Amino acid sequence: MSDLTVTDVRLTPVLIADPPLLNVQGVHQPYTPRLVVEVVTADGVTGVGETYGDTKYLEPARAYAGLLPGHSVADLNGLAALAQRVAVGHARVEHAVDAAGLRGAQTADKVRLSVVSAFEVACLDALGKAYGQPVHALLGGKVRDHVEYSAYLFHRWEEHPDGAGERDDWGAALDPAGIVAQARRFVREYGFRSFKLKGGVFEPDREIAAVRALAEAFPGQPLRLDPNGAWTPETSLRVARELEGVLEYLEDPSPGAAAMAEVSAGTDVPLATNMCVTAVPEIREAFLTDAVQVVLSDHHYWGGLRATQELAAVCHAFGVGLSMHSNTHMGISLAAMTHVAATVPHLGHSCDSHYPWQTEDVITRRHTFTGGRLTVSDAPGLGVELDRDALGRLHARWLDESYAAMRERDDAAAMRRARGHETWTAPGLPRW
Amino acid sequence: MSDLTVTDVRLTPVLIADPPLLNVQGVHQPYTPRLVVEVVTADGVTGVGETYGDTKYLEPARAYAGLLPGHSVADLNGLAALAQRVAVGHARVEHAVDAAGLRGAQTADKVRLSVVSAFEVACLDALGKAYGQPVHALLGGKVRDHVEYSAYLFHRWEEHPDGAGERDDWGAALDPAGIVAQARRFVREYGFRSFKLKGGVFEPDREIAAVRALAEAFPGQPLRLDPNGAWTPETSLRVARELEGVLEYLEDPSPGAAAMAEVSAGTDVPLATNMCVTAVPEIREAFLTDAVQVVLSDHHYWGGLRATQELAAVCHAFGVGLSMHSNTHMGISLAAMTHVAATVPHLGHSCDSHYPWQTEDVITRRHTFTGGRLTVSDAPGLGVELDRDALGRLHARWLDESYAAMRERDDAAAMRRARGHETWTAPGLPRW
Repeated sequence: MSDLTVTDVRLTPVLIADPPLLNVQGVHQPYTPRLVVEVVTADGVTGVGETYGDTKYLEPARAYAGLLPGHSVADLNGLAALAQRVAVGHARVEHAVDAAGLRGAQTADKVRLSVVSAFEVACLDALGKAYGQPVHALLGGKVRDHVEYSAYLFHRWEEHPDGAGERDDWGAALDPAGIVAQARRFVREYGFRSFKLKGGVFEPDREIAAVRALAEAFPGQPLRLDPNGAWTPETSLRVARELEGVLEYLEDPSPGAAAMAEVSAGTDVPLATNMCVTAVPEIREAFLTDAVQVVLSDHHYWGGLRATQELAAVCHAFGVGLSMHSNTHMGISLAAMTHVAATVPHLGHSCDSHYPWQTEDVITRRHTFTGGRLTVSDAPGLGVELDRDALGRLHARWLDESYAAMRERDDAAAMRRARGHETWTAPGLPRW
Repeated sequence: MSDLTVTDVRLTPVLIADPPLLNVQGVHQPYTPRLVVEVVTADGVTGVGETYGDTKYLEPARAYAGLLPGHSVADLNGLAALAQRVAVGHARVEHAVDAAGLRGAQTADKVRLSVVSAFEVACLDALGKAYGQPVHALLGGKVRDHVEYSAYLFHRWEEHPDGAGERDDWGAALDPAGIVAQARRFVREYGFRSFKLKGGVFEPDREIAAVRALAEAFPGQPLRLDPNGAWTPETSLRVARELEGVLEYLEDPSPGAAAMAEVSAGTDVPLATNMCVTAVPEIREAFLTDAVQVVLSDHHYWGGLRATQELAAVCHAFGVGLSMHSNTHMGISLAAMTHVAATVPHLGHSCDSHYPWQTEDVITRRHTFTGGRLTVSDAPGLGVELDRDALGRLHARWLDESYAAMRERDDAAAMRRARGHETWTAPGLPRW
């Protein structure tokens, strides 16, 4: 039997290109920080994982990396316990709004879980390679051969201000026609059969119009709208009334479980969340008050793939649906998302992924959506291979002092830079 | 990498000796049916599991065994799905009371899960042997090196009527002094540091007296009382008042979630259950109504070790405590219980086990409680080895037509035989 003891850990922060996608907080920066985690076992097997790369994650990740050697990559339950020994910068956590995730109240534990998630995925990747088994088999085995994703539609500018960042050919999308055009290209290129529109950018009526335009262009196909808590319960209920029968679900219309419960009580449109249920201590209130009917899991939030399965079990027990959230990410995380999604029996909705917006990656063969789906890999581990040239290039960008401002993702700061003045701040929630 | 495909399945029903332990349904039979499951992989690795052996389990287990070859022992998520293809004898399930488990309402799905549990354990045992890893490592790794068990105290006769069955030297225990003497011997021989008394046998005051006698004999040590739903909510509340501050928890004082919620609302004594929360569809109501504060998991009920971990996650999310239930079982199941218990972080109570009452087993080296605990095995798989001579002997007893009446466990029928007439029936619940 191979020696599964971790002997080495490598952390590589990178900056990856991100288009000017708009949300209630502001706009995506030209580059987003991500962290690539590698664990190496005594037998020389390497596993990879990926998570947020901002300093508040990077610092505890470095501390965690120092604790991991000597532990077995099979000791997955031990990973969470180990994280309790890692300090999390208080000031950074108190930063009022999590620009990178819009993840509700910030706590040190949430930061720890997001750090642990990358190590758990890396350990599973290494373990799978050691056993000759795909990660899904380590999670009990896939219950489907393909995982369905939705087209993640954004209002966006054509390019970043002052030509910053990497250009793409998607063009601007700032009205319903632009959103429909974007959706058509998503369908053409990737075959997506469901659509999620990031809202909270324009006044509600304009976003209602965009959803109606999508419904007309893609009759009968699932549609979602996610304003990231931009609306009061009153506004949310008005939108829900107008879009009843049109939306598959309405995602985080109002901020916080109490407001969501108020909205939920007044509409039959299912409410989904990745803001008010993002960690175990938040489940109980939301479920007891029927605040949400769908939880968007995210293995980066919940502490890894096994924790995501546990969340799925909790949702199933309470008749709450399950979907999957995404933030800007690369192919390592997409592989991890696909493996865990393949193992969850009651995954009732297509998963979100920013991946089509990401043109830069650290794996040798990018994932390809076909018919809106990814095929679940049966290769050992995650089934991805690090492209060390790409990793080095993206890390060099992270090291380059001229990109230093990009090392912290702050969509509000990006918006301030775009507007050319320093007084703009992200609106308080709810905005409308 | 080894070939994990199941090529052969062996089912061996056995009859094992059981002392005359009393409960609200009647009395344990002289012999209890259990089923030993073996799965064999293409590479010749054998894994073992154990579950109920009554016909209602044996028949679907045989059907299931026919479906399993060709599947991988790593495809644990597929095991549950496969069970849906197995018919469960309707008449047997409708049998009003589950004498073997007092497990609330019977459903075909519950029977399927109890069947699947043995196959899941057998697959995990085989998988662990193939990987060179203990079962706990396949469940994410142990978070403790020892698992604590409680002394499971029973009112009992000295021997079965007419000298049936195998004799033991424990003597009768039919009053508080007898229970304390039994507890003292449990402590002397096994070092148990917590105690569970099976109640529902005598009128409540006599059982209250037994608990008080235990509290006096073992001051400060955790005590539990489990009348298996024998009491009305009114009686339960009276008992709770009398034993407040004495009991660690009161287990299933009244039958059903609604009655439990009524009791729970009227007392600060924590209520535990293995009767009103025994399958996923029963969780929601019980948790929403705060009917129970502790769930006794049982991998035979919930469909295996991974399902037990999921139950643990649900309990944790809702702040509900976790303990572990037991029924008459052998060393294979005790090994499985110990592995999963070792992996659950929030296991806040010692586990129940009938094991000290079982003198017959099918493994080569019996488990030994030291200081009331079992050491978690780090050997590949479950860490137990089948004793084929013992298995053959106990199977021969099962085949022997003179033991045919024992092939179905029915504590009420055993009580009828003991009383020498056919009119006695188990009392309706609640009894007092």
